[in-house]
Amino acid sequence: MVQLSQPLLDRSFGALADPTRRAILMQLGRSEASISDLAVNFEMTLTGLKKHVHVLEEAGLVTTEKVGRVRHCRLGPQRLQDVTQWLGSYQRMLEQRLDHLEAFLERTRGTP
Amino acid sequence: MVQLSQPLLDRSFGALADPTRRAILMQLGRSEASISDLAVNFEMTLTGLKKHVHVLEEAGLVTTEKVGRVRHCRLGPQRLQDVTQWLGSYQRMLEQRLDHLEAFLERTRGTP
Repeated sequence: MVQLSQPLLDRSFGALADPTRRAILMQLGRSEASISDLAVNFEMTLTGLKKHVHVLEEAGLVTTEKVGRVRHCRLGPQRLQDVTQWLGSYQRMLEQRLDHLEAFLERTRGTP
Repeated sequence: MVQLSQPLLDRSFGALADPTRRAILMQLGRSEASISDLAVNFEMTLTGLKKHVHVLEEAGLVTTEKVGRVRHCRLGPQRLQDVTQWLGSYQRMLEQRLDHLEAFLERTRGTP
């Protein structure tokens, strides 16, 4: 299995474990937005929205920058490659298991 | 975007946000194990291990069955297809954004 940073995986998966945070990622993928824009869009208080953005920021999935009085959000350096890699390993493990099971059944069927 | 069950995605991503739970999934992918086997393997107390298994069970990623005094664990009905689908949508969104950016750069370059 590929060596992945476990703390980074924890933060990535944790950040994705919420529907608002997943929706924020999708929206920022389409275009940058300010915290206020996001709060209006998701019908949340600024405080609630900021907490979600903070979790995404900690996972490197979102970057924020304050320009004047407005905090702008955009997608961060992390692109969920670690999460994709981990899922790939899991998928390969399941496929190998299926192969073993099929080979076992083949052998059993071959027995008189 | 594919319509996915948001509560199921929350539980799946939440269950994966811990290194022990990810390792339990990988181990159960290779072979079934009892709660005690897993506790020994991960050098955890039975109570601690049970909590992790419970989170995986709630997400449908693990199924347990008590036979006599031993609780056996194996992979559950969920195979993280929802998580894989969501990541696919995210990836496609990023690719589309890249396409738009490239098209924009092409147009800009074409301007005298």
